[in-house]
Amino acid sequence: MSCTDLAILLQHAATRLRINCIKATDASNSGHPTSCASIAEIMAVLFLKEMKYKPNDPRNPSSDRFVLSKGHAAPILYAAWAEVGLLSEDDLLNLRKLSSDLEGHPTPRLSFVDVATGSLGQGLSNAAGMAYVGKYIDKASYRVYCIVGDGEAAEGNVWEALAFASYYKLDNLVMILDVNRLGQSQATSLQHDMGAYQKRCEAFGWHTLLVDGHNVNELLSAFSTARSVKEKPVALLCRTFKGADFPGIADEENWHGKPLGSKSAEVIRYLEAKLKVDACGDIGPTLGRLKPSPPLDDCTPLKLIGSISLPSPPQYKLGEQVATRLAFGNALARLGQACDRVIGLDGDTKNSTFSIKLRDCRPAQFIECFIAEQNLVGVGIGCAVRQRTVPFVSTFGAFLTRAFDQIRMGAVSQTNCNFVGSHAGVSIGEDGPSQMALEDLAMFRSVSGSTVFYPSDAVATERAVELAANTQGICFIRTGRPNHPVIYQSTELFAIGRGKVVRSSGTDTDQLTIVAAGVTLFEALKAAELLAAENIQVRVIDPFTIKPMDGTLLKQAVQETCGHLITVEDHFPEGGIGDAVEQALSQAGITHTVHRMAIREVPRSGTPTELLHKYGIDANAIFLSVKRVLTTFKS
Amino acid sequence: MSCTDLAILLQHAATRLRINCIKATDASNSGHPTSCASIAEIMAVLFLKEMKYKPNDPRNPSSDRFVLSKGHAAPILYAAWAEVGLLSEDDLLNLRKLSSDLEGHPTPRLSFVDVATGSLGQGLSNAAGMAYVGKYIDKASYRVYCIVGDGEAAEGNVWEALAFASYYKLDNLVMILDVNRLGQSQATSLQHDMGAYQKRCEAFGWHTLLVDGHNVNELLSAFSTARSVKEKPVALLCRTFKGADFPGIADEENWHGKPLGSKSAEVIRYLEAKLKVDACGDIGPTLGRLKPSPPLDDCTPLKLIGSISLPSPPQYKLGEQVATRLAFGNALARLGQACDRVIGLDGDTKNSTFSIKLRDCRPAQFIECFIAEQNLVGVGIGCAVRQRTVPFVSTFGAFLTRAFDQIRMGAVSQTNCNFVGSHAGVSIGEDGPSQMALEDLAMFRSVSGSTVFYPSDAVATERAVELAANTQGICFIRTGRPNHPVIYQSTELFAIGRGKVVRSSGTDTDQLTIVAAGVTLFEALKAAELLAAENIQVRVIDPFTIKPMDGTLLKQAVQETCGHLITVEDHFPEGGIGDAVEQALSQAGITHTVHRMAIREVPRSGTPTELLHKYGIDANAIFLSVKRVLTTFKS
Repeated sequence: MSCTDLAILLQHAATRLRINCIKATDASNSGHPTSCASIAEIMAVLFLKEMKYKPNDPRNPSSDRFVLSKGHAAPILYAAWAEVGLLSEDDLLNLRKLSSDLEGHPTPRLSFVDVATGSLGQGLSNAAGMAYVGKYIDKASYRVYCIVGDGEAAEGNVWEALAFASYYKLDNLVMILDVNRLGQSQATSLQHDMGAYQKRCEAFGWHTLLVDGHNVNELLSAFSTARSVKEKPVALLCRTFKGADFPGIADEENWHGKPLGSKSAEVIRYLEAKLKVDACGDIGPTLGRLKPSPPLDDCTPLKLIGSISLPSPPQYKLGEQVATRLAFGNALARLGQACDRVIGLDGDTKNSTFSIKLRDCRPAQFIECFIAEQNLVGVGIGCAVRQRTVPFVSTFGAFLTRAFDQIRMGAVSQTNCNFVGSHAGVSIGEDGPSQMALEDLAMFRSVSGSTVFYPSDAVATERAVELAANTQGICFIRTGRPNHPVIYQSTELFAIGRGKVVRSSGTDTDQLTIVAAGVTLFEALKAAELLAAENIQVRVIDPFTIKPMDGTLLKQAVQETCGHLITVEDHFPEGGIGDAVEQALSQAGITHTVHRMAIREVPRSGTPTELLHKYGIDANAIFLSVKRVLTTFKS
Repeated sequence: MSCTDLAILLQHAATRLRINCIKATDASNSGHPTSCASIAEIMAVLFLKEMKYKPNDPRNPSSDRFVLSKGHAAPILYAAWAEVGLLSEDDLLNLRKLSSDLEGHPTPRLSFVDVATGSLGQGLSNAAGMAYVGKYIDKASYRVYCIVGDGEAAEGNVWEALAFASYYKLDNLVMILDVNRLGQSQATSLQHDMGAYQKRCEAFGWHTLLVDGHNVNELLSAFSTARSVKEKPVALLCRTFKGADFPGIADEENWHGKPLGSKSAEVIRYLEAKLKVDACGDIGPTLGRLKPSPPLDDCTPLKLIGSISLPSPPQYKLGEQVATRLAFGNALARLGQACDRVIGLDGDTKNSTFSIKLRDCRPAQFIECFIAEQNLVGVGIGCAVRQRTVPFVSTFGAFLTRAFDQIRMGAVSQTNCNFVGSHAGVSIGEDGPSQMALEDLAMFRSVSGSTVFYPSDAVATERAVELAANTQGICFIRTGRPNHPVIYQSTELFAIGRGKVVRSSGTDTDQLTIVAAGVTLFEALKAAELLAAENIQVRVIDPFTIKPMDGTLLKQAVQETCGHLITVEDHFPEGGIGDAVEQALSQAGITHTVHRMAIREVPRSGTPTELLHKYGIDANAIFLSVKRVLTTFKS
């Protein structure tokens, strides 16, 4: 095939993509045809010439990866898969319908989508994670392509990803920046200043190529050059027009997120006429279609989740003083030694979260992501794609709030990435409120389908890590800074949604139930001792997981302890253990009142002991609360 | 005074700052003396020569602003205020003590701190907000200085702030980048590659100056040059050493966040010896100290909060179809017309959130922040500082999750910045889950001291905006996409923590209470009609604020409706209305069971009506739930 033939075939494909985007968004009466039009030639070149994959096997481990970071251009992604035969053109007319998986923004409900996009500026981190795994873990030939919109390039997350990708020399990663000049409500800050984009991307260590994004020959040439660049990721900076090739609409404001409606027929006529022009510019018969080339088959499928286990039971002794953050580090290292696909990622806190334990024994399974939590999480999600790895992303729990949007999107992405947040609550002490995770349980509980672990000792932590590695969906493990005694035997069995009664005088004599975890569990146990000295017996429950919360155990406890229940947590009052316990009791159909003890103001610096006391969650406060509840609410 | 004298005085001050940092962190046995040492000369030059302020009046509106973005260097900030006399050197020894406001990281409990720092990479956005207000709203001469650490420069938030500041030509803003090469757990990714920092900052539109950060003459000269740069913000890129001038410690790894302990005496001896050397290099008597110069008195104090009111009652008619997002836009415009210090900030969604209404009538009171939510929030918080403005920050509620860390820090900062999140829940329809706020109530409820509004109609929304403007702390207003009828008279009074009974057949006949807000309130009202047709009377409550939740109204309702209570929310089950109602009932001492209806999986695209139905929160689902509850739980 001559270059000219190839170009005309690609241009025709781009035109068909445009037509299908117009038709689909007209059918749904919503969507973003103009944001699709700016990348029509890019998509045609990518899907028909540049990328190596099998249209009928989109998740083949050896195939090139594609991330549409500007997820609102979903219709052209769907149109591309129709162009290569996975979907029919009729399917496209079901865009955004409840009965169809062709949603407004792409999600992995579709076999050809690895990560959900639509919250802008995240896709490049996901793509960088995939590229990292491809280069350093799979050591395979697949390449990763990510289309980023110019509007979303204002997101700091994008610049975190750019820095990461160049630091790790991800020469298997190509970003295609679609500089179509127009945002949602006005022009972007840089409009068509291609030089500014080039300076920025080069300053961040990327090889850049300036491209007319509507010229298929320039695109072919740029992708070819990109393949030859070693030790650097490559950015194709494409000057494009929003609504390109839509006469009267291209490059005009006020066309964001709008179907063409009454303008459609005329635009489609114009586009269809272009399909009848052959390589010589003559009107002729419809030309054939291009087919993508398959990948080199150099990457084998993996099935990790459900298969990962600790090489031996936890090795701690009862009473041994161990912080759960250290227990996490030890567990991660042990799991990583047992399975070379278990990886750790951290944001320059590895000597605090103790993920350094994995780095020290299995450096190839550890990725330092520096102080850039959004990219840290995005890379983690990218690493989990197609079950190539089981990632554990760790930093201070407080700093995971930096990536709530990425974590939320991780749930939409059906990711199996695991998150570990250390330095829970006021018990970290002197560093003060900026470093204290006091909203982390609220955040992770609210994430759809999540599992939230709050292990209280080293044995429980080790099992939480093992369980998280094998659990679908987003898992979060909350760890603490201070040392506490090991309270569980190495043989203790743990399960998601199963709490433990850690103290009870018997079903007939317990007068009240305390639910606590981490540092407050130990305070509750101390309070129980003080109360016992006054002949007041209380039951103490360690929930192990906050979501799901063990409703059965709580129901029994409430029924056996006269309805008296106190929750104590090193967390703000909203969204944590108190809320979770109430939810579980209501769901179990138990009428209840929960007396919740929690941090009720922005805390300050002090020693852990002082702070537990000042904010009313220490043994003494629990002791007084129990007495108050028993006095006030006589059964 | 000769230049040489000035230099020696500044160098001596830097040495005293170092000594005080060592002593303070030794006294607290924690803290970051080496991170202080790298900026000792910078701090001396800033506080004794460059900045114009009154040491005894730190929050004077005319004075220069200072933000220590690398908040862990707090001890040197405190030492600087001791150097100028606001604190005593003895005070410094109370660092990180519970009894002292000299916390591990700076908070506005201290009169000289405007915004809390400590979660990295946020300070420059705050500083940019202050500079924007200084240049465009106060139109005053004060300048804004922000010290950013090299480790935190990996945060995307920093690059969002850099882009914002150059776009708005903030030539009253100076960033001092402390490139000390070492992060917490290892060297930074760029180490001492000053050229890379320079390229990046220049590509982002800043004027840069390369400086030896330990040379006071270079610093003096650079700050002087910075004053002459017009229409561009200026970055002093300072090459420094962590632990500078601490013999044996400077530029060494493993000294992050560690007091000098046993090394202190020797280091202090070394530093004290330097104080005895005069300008000629001779040993002499202790030299005098420099004093800062006062600012030009060109900015008057303001007291905004508590004084802002709508020019007239809401103008809506009962039954009029208005989306609450539109009502927010109208209210913001009306409030902005009434008070020129009410401002709006948006992230390129102003035509969706309707903050465009303010932009259209008061363009000088609107700041377009483009698609960079972290900076959007940080700038908003900066704008609120010293009550110079009352900011409303708006975007899709889902995208505010992008800035959870910034919002959380806003609470530590005691900010009065207000947040408005549109496009709540599945009722947005076809755009799909990435665009749906389904965790926003959980997020904002968990923020310490927050007020969470969920107005259901246009009148309530307008009052929510007015109340938020006058309420201390972080306020959040949740708005929706679909139109709903106005249900409140213009004269209706609204208060924080006071809900409304919007339907009741009387205290003796209501059989069950439904708590709902926004779209689900209208579904509940429809369900109530259907139930009434079957002679089942229900009470419907609009809580107006989710935090605080009206426990008194709920208590009465539960008591009067046989303990039957259903919550219905367009939000995930955790952290929203259901949790808030249970918390309020427990707090009111009411034993209860809450039957919660919420979104229980990651939703998909579809029409709003289809989605409300599919996820079980429409009138029909409520109708069935009420009947099930009344059948199952007979009173």
